[in-house]
Amino acid sequence: MQRYFSDEYIDNPYVLPPTVYAHCIKVLRSKVGTQFEVVLPNQKIWQMELTKVDVAAKVAVAKLVKEVVIAVENRIKTTIVCGLAKQDKASLVVQKATELGVDKIYFVPMQYSVAKWQAKKAEQKIVRLQKIAQSAAEQSHRTKVPEIAFKASLTEVIAASAAYDEKIVAYEESAKQGEVSQLKQTMDNLTTKLKAGSLPKLLAVFGPEGGIAPDEIAQLTAANFALCGLGPRILRTETAPLYLLAVASAVAELGI
Amino acid sequence: MQRYFSDEYIDNPYVLPPTVYAHCIKVLRSKVGTQFEVVLPNQKIWQMELTKVDVAAKVAVAKLVKEVVIAVENRIKTTIVCGLAKQDKASLVVQKATELGVDKIYFVPMQYSVAKWQAKKAEQKIVRLQKIAQSAAEQSHRTKVPEIAFKASLTEVIAASAAYDEKIVAYEESAKQGEVSQLKQTMDNLTTKLKAGSLPKLLAVFGPEGGIAPDEIAQLTAANFALCGLGPRILRTETAPLYLLAVASAVAELGI
Repeated sequence: MQRYFSDEYIDNPYVLPPTVYAHCIKVLRSKVGTQFEVVLPNQKIWQMELTKVDVAAKVAVAKLVKEVVIAVENRIKTTIVCGLAKQDKASLVVQKATELGVDKIYFVPMQYSVAKWQAKKAEQKIVRLQKIAQSAAEQSHRTKVPEIAFKASLTEVIAASAAYDEKIVAYEESAKQGEVSQLKQTMDNLTTKLKAGSLPKLLAVFGPEGGIAPDEIAQLTAANFALCGLGPRILRTETAPLYLLAVASAVAELGI
Repeated sequence: MQRYFSDEYIDNPYVLPPTVYAHCIKVLRSKVGTQFEVVLPNQKIWQMELTKVDVAAKVAVAKLVKEVVIAVENRIKTTIVCGLAKQDKASLVVQKATELGVDKIYFVPMQYSVAKWQAKKAEQKIVRLQKIAQSAAEQSHRTKVPEIAFKASLTEVIAASAAYDEKIVAYEESAKQGEVSQLKQTMDNLTTKLKAGSLPKLLAVFGPEGGIAPDEIAQLTAANFALCGLGPRILRTETAPLYLLAVASAVAELGI
């Protein structure tokens, strides 16, 4: 179906403006009954049908048949858990992960975290990061702003992990050892659930710069988190979640 | 095969150090002739075979059978072409794209580029960016440093594009219109070539902040670049190439 973008909201019935008239009526020679789509500034799509075409008077009118919404939210609901990292990596992760469709982002102190967030600082940081998420959600035309939160400990994260369909931990040693099958397995499990019509939830833990301590790994594997490599290269702490989110998008949204 | 990591390079023949001895001989009860692997600091793997086990003296010795190299370079050779963008986005793209396995990165002035690189400035910038690529390649344990270059115009890029198997341009309007099939098609074509044993080359163009001008799109489509959406959300100029590279890694390196 022919699609036109409109910089403004349109009326119903809709008198075709000159540019749309020129293409729809003069170029395509559309007749009464022909349907086309208009994309509104809010990304909603109005499916329209021509109800009047008067070539002599250069006037054409269409009515709204139905409103269609493009799905901009990934149906795989991914929560990323990031060990506190140095510098302003949290801002980068929040901005980019929001663009890439993340559902929730938790920041948590981990054993190898050099950065420390005191309780008060954590609160202020979360407010600032939530604003970054809001802005990135608007810019990337999302319909949902991801929730950003601080969790006091990995134990707290694990305690709430039963609500997730799949739980993974990105593990550098897995990548080094050439582990390549877990992410595919996880994505296969998620797409099976998607095909069955549910909105599966994925929980993914990423360590800080120094990685994840052996007893954190033990704690996570005891709670049924799968150790997962993200390809053969060693990704930085802020790059790894972006890799995962891009893959979850490709799988759920592009059918790759 | 059992695998051990070594923080140091090892000798051939290799006298098992206490930790490896404890696991390999006492736990696994390995005998002469048993093979195992040792991962060296440079990510190369030495496949070893036990030649002597003396439990009374607590001594075991193994010899090198062969050296194995883990493939850390994506067999899809991706060149990304980035329209000049504002601020220090080029550094971010170079660092992250290197981690994600890019083969080459070209920076090119495009119509909507607000940033301008004068000839002399471009030269200095490329030297600096090449250093960032070197450092990121080392950090991510790559065996190749991506080539970074400045191209004077899109026309120059297009003139050299015949050498590529697949050519795409990330187009925001494609994403807005819900185009979801091109990237899958491109990845399918590349994996077909991979399975046939070749190392296919992908060329991908990304516009600057303002997007790609209509006549640039016309120029690229005339040169057989496919218009490609990268999921339903609008990605920033520096995020889009990272999305593509993560997907190319997942497809070629994780079999997703």
